[in-house]
Amino acid sequence: MTDYKKLWESLDMDLEKHEQLCNLLPDFFAEVYLSQENRPEGMNYFNLVVSSIHGLRPEELKRHRDSGGKVVGTFCVYVPDELIFAAGAIGIGLCGGSQFWVADGERVLPKNTCPLIKSFMGAKITKTCPYFQSCDLLVGETTCDGKKKAWEIMKNYADIHVMHLPQMKRDIDLRAWSHELEILKERLEELTGNEITPSKLKDAIKLINEKRKALRRLYELRKANPVPISGKDALLVTQIAFYDDPERFTSKVNSLCDELEERVKLGKGVFPSGTKRIIITGTPMAIPNWKLHHIVETSGAAVVCEETCTGTRYFENLVDEELDTLEAQIMAMSERYMKTNCACFTPNQGRIDDIIRLVREYKADGVIYYNLQFCQPYAVEYELVRQALQREGIPVLFIETDYSENDSGQIKTRVQAFLEMLG
Amino acid sequence: MTDYKKLWESLDMDLEKHEQLCNLLPDFFAEVYLSQENRPEGMNYFNLVVSSIHGLRPEELKRHRDSGGKVVGTFCVYVPDELIFAAGAIGIGLCGGSQFWVADGERVLPKNTCPLIKSFMGAKITKTCPYFQSCDLLVGETTCDGKKKAWEIMKNYADIHVMHLPQMKRDIDLRAWSHELEILKERLEELTGNEITPSKLKDAIKLINEKRKALRRLYELRKANPVPISGKDALLVTQIAFYDDPERFTSKVNSLCDELEERVKLGKGVFPSGTKRIIITGTPMAIPNWKLHHIVETSGAAVVCEETCTGTRYFENLVDEELDTLEAQIMAMSERYMKTNCACFTPNQGRIDDIIRLVREYKADGVIYYNLQFCQPYAVEYELVRQALQREGIPVLFIETDYSENDSGQIKTRVQAFLEMLG
Repeated sequence: MTDYKKLWESLDMDLEKHEQLCNLLPDFFAEVYLSQENRPEGMNYFNLVVSSIHGLRPEELKRHRDSGGKVVGTFCVYVPDELIFAAGAIGIGLCGGSQFWVADGERVLPKNTCPLIKSFMGAKITKTCPYFQSCDLLVGETTCDGKKKAWEIMKNYADIHVMHLPQMKRDIDLRAWSHELEILKERLEELTGNEITPSKLKDAIKLINEKRKALRRLYELRKANPVPISGKDALLVTQIAFYDDPERFTSKVNSLCDELEERVKLGKGVFPSGTKRIIITGTPMAIPNWKLHHIVETSGAAVVCEETCTGTRYFENLVDEELDTLEAQIMAMSERYMKTNCACFTPNQGRIDDIIRLVREYKADGVIYYNLQFCQPYAVEYELVRQALQREGIPVLFIETDYSENDSGQIKTRVQAFLEMLG
Repeated sequence: MTDYKKLWESLDMDLEKHEQLCNLLPDFFAEVYLSQENRPEGMNYFNLVVSSIHGLRPEELKRHRDSGGKVVGTFCVYVPDELIFAAGAIGIGLCGGSQFWVADGERVLPKNTCPLIKSFMGAKITKTCPYFQSCDLLVGETTCDGKKKAWEIMKNYADIHVMHLPQMKRDIDLRAWSHELEILKERLEELTGNEITPSKLKDAIKLINEKRKALRRLYELRKANPVPISGKDALLVTQIAFYDDPERFTSKVNSLCDELEERVKLGKGVFPSGTKRIIITGTPMAIPNWKLHHIVETSGAAVVCEETCTGTRYFENLVDEELDTLEAQIMAMSERYMKTNCACFTPNQGRIDDIIRLVREYKADGVIYYNLQFCQPYAVEYELVRQALQREGIPVLFIETDYSENDSGQIKTRVQAFLEMLG
């Protein structure tokens, strides 16, 4: 990793603390990922990206910035990458998934805040994340109380633009969101000095749609039985989607899918036939948060789908590519993004319908409802999801946890009992 | 209390469980309130209202409903009573302040939800609150994640209209809020069958403004040194403001203020001269949540002001009374309500400015930041408030707690240490 020392210095990073962080990942990744049997060859690219997570891509960001480009950090699947790329900037998803940063986040945030928020805050204030350090602008949003209020503290450390996400999905809210997209467009034009033209936006819409289509293809292949790729590997791919170069990423996912298609034709899977199929629904899993997937897949089951922001919510629904005016394009984007069913909306029946539909499509045996500790929207929404799944006769297990490993044994016991109950 | 048994039966209440609740209040009220020395005579009315809290006013609500009137329950100082009263309905604040209901709230809500939300949910689902049982419609809002999502569950038990409160205070948000007021107006007209005319709304604006002016007068008198009324008593008055008949309430508060004015003239106070003066800021204290005030005022200090929803946020700022069209009246209401500085807004510098201003105006020696456990907006906002108060040299103590008495001893110790530090 020392090859990148100059890069990290140029990003004003805390090198000493950063080294502690870098020392943790390789063993952890080897234990969780490289121990898997029967992995697709196509995962090699993603292994490489992770093994050099603080080097390869940050180096690309630096080259982009050295030639006058801008980098924009985001935290939510409602923030439109299309506008960022149309402005000639690079968008990077920044949510923190590491326990390493939590204690530092707690220096400025209450302990009873969700670990994702504490983690990204710790990453920023300790200057140990090259992605944060590469950003010329952060874009926050008013999705949940924790994030909404965290931006006010983040402002002490970085330039941040906050988008006002409506909490309902009426026509008036759709228009309000398109207005927020327009405000962001202006802010990005100001930041980059580049005008967002209909033609550039059209290209960016296609670029991001292609990424979504590749992920959709990957998820379609997970419907096969036996499943041709582990849930852990699929999760890793989706996590990397948030920060990798979109064009390269799309091509690598499609290559992986070519290989998986062959596997499906041959009836070849990563787990034995008859392995229990689990859908995970709930809060996002930012890299390197592989905790629950690892527990499930070392307990004899397969995760076949994630109804999360690092799952279907990220790539479902495309933006209409055939529009030629900014007004129409922005409204189409507003429509696409407002189809996403996050628990921050009220009501949110669409998510319940999604979960039930996915259980059928993926022929899942059960659902694990994953909740990052202190995430209130998803925690409260569990009650209505539970009631609906019960009516449908779909077994569900609620797991609330943080990024520490303290409760892993206990969760494993509960997951195993749940899997046994599935029969 | 048995006089009201018929009333409670008519409200489909759980009489047995309700009796348990009724048995708790008298001793508790006597211990916290009647033990105080030197109370103003004018508090007798408010003592009476509390001692018959589930009888007197619910009986009035019943009479109103028996003659065809409607009752509307609310949970937030952003929901405009003016519109409710202009429609000929009675508005009642329903937030729960009792530990009695928390366990039942936890049957449908996560344990790590704020006690206020768990309490009102428990009150509704156990049918032990005559106010809830008297409501023809509930009006919720999207202030915080916990409440926003709780309405979806509440819908299983009651008819509820949810208002979409913006989370910022730009011009566009002001217009969005006025639009929400228009939607509520239509809903109330539909509910009551009464048209809200400019003239009726004008009367209602005056009615509610008069209540605000009376409370403002009460708070002005608390600026005197020695303070002529305890914080506990002032809090009780504000708590009762949420559900009492506005006209009678206003007149009783004004009588109390006449008496307090005399006290101030005579230099007569409820605590000795030199008593430390504390401002409490943070989350609301719904009746019968008197926990922190009781601790502070039995530790040798006086609470002289509350920058809370059961304090200044409830009555600061008036609605313009001189407007004659609905459009202008509703915009004036939107402007008035959007001046209120709740932590659900981002940014919320106005609240920091308010706290510092109030410390000066009330000549406070220190601030206690009160946070209901798991209230994220106020918990996260503490960091910026703390920083600002530190810059101003104003001592502040952060207390996070719930409705139980388990931590009372510990809080008392911390409050006493804080008061000693004030010198």
